[in-house]
Amino acid sequence: MNVGIVGATGYTGLELLRLLVTHPNVDSLLLTSRKNKGLSVGRVYPEFQSVIDLEYSEPSPEVLADCDVVFFCTPHGVAQTMVPSLLEVGVKVIDLSADFRIRDVSMWEKWYGMTHGAPNCVARAVYGLPEFNREKIALADLIACPGCYPTTVELGLLPLLENGCLELSDIIANVASGVSGAGKTLSTDKLFAEVNDSFKAYGVSGHRHQPEIEQILSEMAGNEVNITFVPHLLPINRGIHSTLYGNLKDSRENVQGLFEDFYRFEPFVQVLPAGLHPSTRNVRGTNICQISVCQPGNNARIIVLVVEDNLTKGASGQAIQCMNIMFSFSETDGLSAAALVP
Amino acid sequence: MNVGIVGATGYTGLELLRLLVTHPNVDSLLLTSRKNKGLSVGRVYPEFQSVIDLEYSEPSPEVLADCDVVFFCTPHGVAQTMVPSLLEVGVKVIDLSADFRIRDVSMWEKWYGMTHGAPNCVARAVYGLPEFNREKIALADLIACPGCYPTTVELGLLPLLENGCLELSDIIANVASGVSGAGKTLSTDKLFAEVNDSFKAYGVSGHRHQPEIEQILSEMAGNEVNITFVPHLLPINRGIHSTLYGNLKDSRENVQGLFEDFYRFEPFVQVLPAGLHPSTRNVRGTNICQISVCQPGNNARIIVLVVEDNLTKGASGQAIQCMNIMFSFSETDGLSAAALVP
Amino acid sequence: MNVGIVGATGYTGLELLRLLVTHPNVDSLLLTSRKNKGLSVGRVYPEFQSVIDLEYSEPSPEVLADCDVVFFCTPHGVAQTMVPSLLEVGVKVIDLSADFRIRDVSMWEKWYGMTHGAPNCVARAVYGLPEFNREKIALADLIACPGCYPTTVELGLLPLLENGCLELSDIIANVASGVSGAGKTLSTDKLFAEVNDSFKAYGVSGHRHQPEIEQILSEMAGNEVNITFVPHLLPINRGIHSTLYGNLKDSRENVQGLFEDFYRFEPFVQVLPAGLHPSTRNVRGTNICQISVCQPGNNARIIVLVVEDNLTKGASGQAIQCMNIMFSFSETDGLSAAALVP
Amino acid sequence: MNVGIVGATGYTGLELLRLLVTHPNVDSLLLTSRKNKGLSVGRVYPEFQSVIDLEYSEPSPEVLADCDVVFFCTPHGVAQTMVPSLLEVGVKVIDLSADFRIRDVSMWEKWYGMTHGAPNCVARAVYGLPEFNREKIALADLIACPGCYPTTVELGLLPLLENGCLELSDIIANVASGVSGAGKTLSTDKLFAEVNDSFKAYGVSGHRHQPEIEQILSEMAGNEVNITFVPHLLPINRGIHSTLYGNLKDSRENVQGLFEDFYRFEPFVQVLPAGLHPSTRNVRGTNICQISVCQPGNNARIIVLVVEDNLTKGASGQAIQCMNIMFSFSETDGLSAAALVP
Repeated sequence: MNVGIVGATGYTGLELLRLLVTHPNVDSLLLTSRKNKGLSVGRVYPEFQSVIDLEYSEPSPEVLADCDVVFFCTPHGVAQTMVPSLLEVGVKVIDLSADFRIRDVSMWEKWYGMTHGAPNCVARAVYGLPEFNREKIALADLIACPGCYPTTVELGLLPLLENGCLELSDIIANVASGVSGAGKTLSTDKLFAEVNDSFKAYGVSGHRHQPEIEQILSEMAGNEVNITFVPHLLPINRGIHSTLYGNLKDSRENVQGLFEDFYRFEPFVQVLPAGLHPSTRNVRGTNICQISVCQPGNNARIIVLVVEDNLTKGASGQAIQCMNIMFSFSETDGLSAAALVP
Repeated sequence: MNVGIVGATGYTGLELLRLLVTHPNVDSLLLTSRKNKGLSVGRVYPEFQSVIDLEYSEPSPEVLADCDVVFFCTPHGVAQTMVPSLLEVGVKVIDLSADFRIRDVSMWEKWYGMTHGAPNCVARAVYGLPEFNREKIALADLIACPGCYPTTVELGLLPLLENGCLELSDIIANVASGVSGAGKTLSTDKLFAEVNDSFKAYGVSGHRHQPEIEQILSEMAGNEVNITFVPHLLPINRGIHSTLYGNLKDSRENVQGLFEDFYRFEPFVQVLPAGLHPSTRNVRGTNICQISVCQPGNNARIIVLVVEDNLTKGASGQAIQCMNIMFSFSETDGLSAAALVP
Repeated sequence: MNVGIVGATGYTGLELLRLLVTHPNVDSLLLTSRKNKGLSVGRVYPEFQSVIDLEYSEPSPEVLADCDVVFFCTPHGVAQTMVPSLLEVGVKVIDLSADFRIRDVSMWEKWYGMTHGAPNCVARAVYGLPEFNREKIALADLIACPGCYPTTVELGLLPLLENGCLELSDIIANVASGVSGAGKTLSTDKLFAEVNDSFKAYGVSGHRHQPEIEQILSEMAGNEVNITFVPHLLPINRGIHSTLYGNLKDSRENVQGLFEDFYRFEPFVQVLPAGLHPSTRNVRGTNICQISVCQPGNNARIIVLVVEDNLTKGASGQAIQCMNIMFSFSETDGLSAAALVP
Repeated sequence: MNVGIVGATGYTGLELLRLLVTHPNVDSLLLTSRKNKGLSVGRVYPEFQSVIDLEYSEPSPEVLADCDVVFFCTPHGVAQTMVPSLLEVGVKVIDLSADFRIRDVSMWEKWYGMTHGAPNCVARAVYGLPEFNREKIALADLIACPGCYPTTVELGLLPLLENGCLELSDIIANVASGVSGAGKTLSTDKLFAEVNDSFKAYGVSGHRHQPEIEQILSEMAGNEVNITFVPHLLPINRGIHSTLYGNLKDSRENVQGLFEDFYRFEPFVQVLPAGLHPSTRNVRGTNICQISVCQPGNNARIIVLVVEDNLTKGASGQAIQCMNIMFSFSETDGLSAAALVP
């Protein structure tokens, strides 16, 4: 099994690498990076010294064509320039960027501010949320990995939407992410002294993850869903915490039981016992999503708390979970380490 | 002007001290602490070395009777044992604990788990939120300072409630606080290695600040208000961020203008220009509350973002603001320093 | 292979558990905890939910006697009460506390403030630093795991001392640790709001790790070594950074080459290329110790920078490394995951 | 009193502004910034909204010529282009950059990598460390403010050097700084996710503050002093902690008494009682430097611990202290607020 990673210098690319070095079915890795071409990974990123002995290559279609699967950890707009030729030669592609997440190409172009370079591939892409799309993922050759926020919101609402328990008109997703979710691109508002010991909302007037979430929630519900979505920036490295608010159609619904039954056989979704609250650190470095449900007033109001590691279940771990499904490996291969606490 | 502080060893007591040492109208301070009796403040808290030369005294009614005003920074249940005798001898009292916040004594006893020691004083207490109660505060001899969360929720909704703009049935307060809000009492879940680099909700099934908030919001609205209230713990020292969700009765309401007009002359409430998001650090160490309002979908949904420093506007600064009003000082005396950024 | 952990509720006990759940040679685990007896691990520590399905047992010698090896993650003074009886029935013991680290029992009693409960076992104990003591560890039945600070100081100086390159009279160890190094015992100075966004030295007048370090450095040098040792508290969860200062006997010594040669075949010690500085995060969650050496003035002054994860190479990882050696497993079994960055 | 600040957008410029808005003798402020020209300060930096109502101006010599004093908070190399013309028209200058700190112009040019633009002004500049140079500062028209690290090292050693107590050959300065010390210039290694929950040394092979420190220590000692200087990066916003190691000429020296006597009348240097360790938070936001001295082995080895806020005593506060001296104000004007703890 030969695996390629395009853009293995950002947080999601390095997270893929961290997880793949212990994956039992990965024989060889090809890492590409224009800027680091020819340099050893361990020299550029000292945390990999002696973990892996590998040099960065130029990202060329010829070299990548020898891979069984290629992961794209590139900024939006890059994967779409290379994916068609890779698919043509039979290489499977797992894209961690947003290039193939939104079915409506014109909506994608509006939110991402560019013309889409491979609109013909969009319909072919399968949204890589295994708990919702496992069968389609198994057959896919192009995976659009979900965004980090969307994964939490969608997993937190899936049992309610599939079972038709939720009023669809007034769902609120109050979400908060660690800083690694914004990547490594330099900007003042990601500097340590700007973020540390502070907290704020951002993008209240509109965030790119909202149309993605609404598309998938609508698929889940079989009906159009619009939500209120407010992201916040947490002074932590990794971790997303979503606090979801909705109203049940029937306030007597046993939601704790519903969630436990729904996710009973999912390897990476854990429903906490009633009364416990998940912390982002519970899942630090893992592919696990922890969920709590609560009906504080014994009325129709339901609150769902969801945590994940934005770099793992929110990105690279979920991408590997998809790879495992596509190649018929055990779904937990390479993803079974316990959380790093504290 | 002689000022007493009972319990000047916790975070709110020391914050009072920090602010009062530069207050132009405070001539002498009396600090009480059973455990530190006879010790110099600067020796116990090295940040005060050479700032103030004072020893802790035993908290006795006789000594406190010489003060013009006494602040209580004590755990719930303590102030109520001393307040009646102080009021009797003409000492004004500003209580930072929850002892006199809730008018319904039986509800107080339910949430705080003890019998109230001075139920006769409850009706006499004025809720110390100057933007709502300034005239009553000026005449009061017993102030019940608002809780830290309630201050943000109440200031964030006051313009809407007083003007009758808001649907009262579905208000949500998604709030997050720095760790100092939980005080210094030892518990595992406040240890650095438990809190750092993590985030979680807590108390989703019920929090003591909820009945306080609902009481005041109902007074503001002239109608019963019930809210959904979900607190979260932030890995920061100081700061509360509240994200408030509601629905306008009329989606065409100019809420930005409404808030700007409502708070135009308030010295400690700042409405940010449309499109800006407040950070907790903007108000670190100050008595300022910053507010943003947003209608992301141009529909009835309104989002109000509110930040304060939980130890200042959320506790000790607001207590001094009340003192300034009670004693006819300038309302900003001792409270005009700029925020500590970064 | 049956493994027991006594005290599997503190940071080192849970770190052992985190590492052992993926260890290829561990068949069954026995976790003891008086306070959590009968409770499931995943219920008490939600990060282990669905990772391990196990209940805490009462720590009794009878139950532990069925183990092949027992780890003690207990406060100082506990292991010594149970170790003799375990050794008697042929159970091997790896003690992560300080009970058997210091050969001079009276010195141990002075620094730890209690009478030693098993002085006869002290001489039998092998100091569990594999890079120094690998052969003895292989034959031992009682391992005294090194302290977290000592591991970094000893590994940073070992190549110099074994080769007789260093003046022994003026060695300085300026060390800094994350808060988990102080354990979970409640104290005000470990509260988040006391530690966060601050930094300080502590224990300058004397720290328990100093006699341990001096004993081992003296063994390495074959001569008495006294050092200046100043610990500091870092506002981070995990990680120790030691900055070691010494003087070479010969300023022309090629120390970079000396270190590279010395540690060339060590699986868990990495000498960084000249000019790089190690970060604690490079080794977060791993058993790796990274070292840089520098001669800034091209004179006799040498500076050695050493980082480790205090819970892994500084405690539980090193304990497993010892177990691997004692039981002839591959030395890296269970310890090969890459660092969690960021 | 008209005060100009050139470069009032970086951390030291905004810190000056924070402190000057409450300074009793400052009547008007002129803030310059090329990039923010015409914008209101409160709009760009929301922490100043309603604190100050002022717009940024273009930094032109004509406008600045009307000031009584001008502070330069600019990158190295900028002040030297404007200072000569300001001095010529009688404006006093306080430069917070390194342009005039080093007397040997060729050494300055070597370390800062550029040709000095105003070498004739270097000799005229007075090094702005009041505890060492108060009389010269009072008469100066050009102040070179000390670097942040140098302030701590110099104040920590001044009593020993002036009294000739210290061996000069083996002084070590192990120093650690919060991230704001590196300014706001964008670089990957200042991103939150790179710095948070980690710690490292940097610049071990050479740092620009070393020649500055050695120049001043040599002046203090009346003899050439060379030191070993190792800086470290702390995951905190503000604060420097220096751990200084030296050897006394006479191990019986009463260093605690020496320090207490030496600094008895200094308003901003506090010698802690024996046995206490200073934390950076003790002085957060203040112009205070706290010092502890320790002789752990009762031998010649002495350890001096020094903390300051790098933006206040290490930069802008000390600059104001110099201004107060130059203009015969009370030295504590604008600098008397207590530390922000926690």
